[in-house]
Amino acid sequence: MSEAVSPTVSLPQDPAVDATIDADRLDDSLAVLGALVDECRLELAADGLHVRAVDPASVAAVSLDLPADAFEQYAANGETVGVDVSRLGEVVGLADPGDSVRLVLDAERRRLHVLVGELAYTLGLIDPEAIREPLDPAEMEYDCPAELAIAGSDVSRIVDAAEMVSTHLTLGVDADPAAFYAEASGDTDDVALAFDGDDLAALSPAAVESLFSLDYLREMARPIPADSEVTIALGTEQPVTLGFDLADGPGEATFLLSPRRSVA
Amino acid sequence: MSEAVSPTVSLPQDPAVDATIDADRLDDSLAVLGALVDECRLELAADGLHVRAVDPASVAAVSLDLPADAFEQYAANGETVGVDVSRLGEVVGLADPGDSVRLVLDAERRRLHVLVGELAYTLGLIDPEAIREPLDPAEMEYDCPAELAIAGSDVSRIVDAAEMVSTHLTLGVDADPAAFYAEASGDTDDVALAFDGDDLAALSPAAVESLFSLDYLREMARPIPADSEVTIALGTEQPVTLGFDLADGPGEATFLLSPRRSVA
Amino acid sequence: MSEAVSPTVSLPQDPAVDATIDADRLDDSLAVLGALVDECRLELAADGLHVRAVDPASVAAVSLDLPADAFEQYAANGETVGVDVSRLGEVVGLADPGDSVRLVLDAERRRLHVLVGELAYTLGLIDPEAIREPLDPAEMEYDCPAELAIAGSDVSRIVDAAEMVSTHLTLGVDADPAAFYAEASGDTDDVALAFDGDDLAALSPAAVESLFSLDYLREMARPIPADSEVTIALGTEQPVTLGFDLADGPGEATFLLSPRRSVA
Repeated sequence: MSEAVSPTVSLPQDPAVDATIDADRLDDSLAVLGALVDECRLELAADGLHVRAVDPASVAAVSLDLPADAFEQYAANGETVGVDVSRLGEVVGLADPGDSVRLVLDAERRRLHVLVGELAYTLGLIDPEAIREPLDPAEMEYDCPAELAIAGSDVSRIVDAAEMVSTHLTLGVDADPAAFYAEASGDTDDVALAFDGDDLAALSPAAVESLFSLDYLREMARPIPADSEVTIALGTEQPVTLGFDLADGPGEATFLLSPRRSVA
Repeated sequence: MSEAVSPTVSLPQDPAVDATIDADRLDDSLAVLGALVDECRLELAADGLHVRAVDPASVAAVSLDLPADAFEQYAANGETVGVDVSRLGEVVGLADPGDSVRLVLDAERRRLHVLVGELAYTLGLIDPEAIREPLDPAEMEYDCPAELAIAGSDVSRIVDAAEMVSTHLTLGVDADPAAFYAEASGDTDDVALAFDGDDLAALSPAAVESLFSLDYLREMARPIPADSEVTIALGTEQPVTLGFDLADGPGEATFLLSPRRSVA
Repeated sequence: MSEAVSPTVSLPQDPAVDATIDADRLDDSLAVLGALVDECRLELAADGLHVRAVDPASVAAVSLDLPADAFEQYAANGETVGVDVSRLGEVVGLADPGDSVRLVLDAERRRLHVLVGELAYTLGLIDPEAIREPLDPAEMEYDCPAELAIAGSDVSRIVDAAEMVSTHLTLGVDADPAAFYAEASGDTDDVALAFDGDDLAALSPAAVESLFSLDYLREMARPIPADSEVTIALGTEQPVTLGFDLADGPGEATFLLSPRRSVA
């Protein structure tokens, strides 16, 4: 849309950020962030979009990277902006399938212009300093020897089943025979899911087991595409990481969830 | 259905009104009326159905006309009946796609028989005198020099976007360059939509602008078919009118909404 | 799934019951039971599954029979187990379309293993003695001379329409001309549905009429497949029975609902 036809939108002459991306692609990415946080910092680096965020309880974290080539057009030079994720998602949600979304940063007036077809939405930015610090990658070294890959739909199935009997579940791997399993116990009922080598896209086994909160896994499972391949790393009383591709390849996201102390 | 098989339904011998219409067609028309009123007067004239109604707050009005040829069969001679619009809509909603609805008026017993397949619903009528007077057309002369036509889906898009930031929006037209625009401002965010000549089915421009309540526009946008062409007339601090075809042509409806005082 | 890959599930060596059935087929059957009861007794006889249950208010009853050949594989010898119907339904609901469900009874530990793909759900059983006695078939001899058959979709349509005006409805049959009818009366509106011979798959008429609660009929109509043929038996101030096939043939279910005293 040209400025001329929209009396209220005055785009900056030489914006620090000017990027265009498929609406669904951006929507999916925002859904991943929205699973853990309401507000977060978007780092618009020269090579693409990078996000690191931790949930308010510091129990879970998310990292998301959309390289420049995941955009139809991308120009940025390292600006970091604070945004209301769910609000931005609502705006992008107004797009029709196949629409593109153009993001133009007005750094001076601290506003992000979101342009979708005839729509020009001006999003007020949040001071990045006011948003909680993401985890320090240095602190994120964990001992997770077991790795495997399952379908996104299986992650949802595990959560659905476990929620029937409990508020938390155990994720573990058996070394011999090699298998990935999820277990939850309730007062009268128990649930167990087991995936052997044949069920898994990949499996490097090790005898490990950790306990996790289902509330967080529910939120994490929601935005993971059912047909995506999810790479899971597990240890004993260690965090679990769930990694998957965004935007059919170019982008990637990883959820990290801290373990719960098991009630012995 | 024949009377014989239904012991409870006794249709009048020589009904004042006996009309049959496609169920979806009638359903769509009732949805338009239901956007503004719960009860209204249906004028069943010889040439078709005519409705004029004003909302309880006298802020908005609707007019609807379904000519006789929009019906599969139509016989009436000027009866005016008061009906519960939403209730009648529920009954018609019981029809299967492709079903026809037959309306038979029992003027004496003040009941409307609604016949759908094996179903005979007897709707108690409301005294027309008990229903608020529609606006006097003589009072409905407004100065709205700007006219344009957009898709029904765009009307919904405008309302969806504006609701994100405010409870009211500005609709306006620019003369040069010719454009139709909608704007809403919130505490932190602003929304603007602009449609130039290329986006519009028709546009006779004039520099005008008025402020409207989104609650009413939301209700009005709901029953407007996404693929219909909506004719909009605008003035400055004047009501807006939204006109569109019903029943794929033969019928037509117009919403009218009074402007709000702008908060200077 | 093999035991090996699932550390928590240890299936009994020589289970009293070991049956496999299409998930949708079992799901549909549980929905029928769930319409009236939360818990019920499943009799796993050598020739198949038999269920007789009565609702907590003793107003309605259900009988359901799934012969052994409705299962992909069936082995049982007359065990009767008490189960939480809705819970079992939730577990079966986790299956994907086309999945099979395997039921393995651990009589000793009073648990039912429900195996769906990688999922092993261990359902704690309920003491059958703790579940209210079903009706004694000897008490279930009624005088219902009128019989007819209509589509499941018509049963729903009758309930939908009657609920608009009342909390109960009359079901009746006229002998001459032969017709099945449903009627409900409200303060201002009335509803009547009539089905003559042409509308009915079968009709053996007799002048009968009884009054029933819509709350129960609503629950009963829900699990009846829209395209199924429902056999209805009616009398005067007698219970109504609604019979229909399950699992496209091999199984069958019958609802029974006691009449209400008509308010003269």
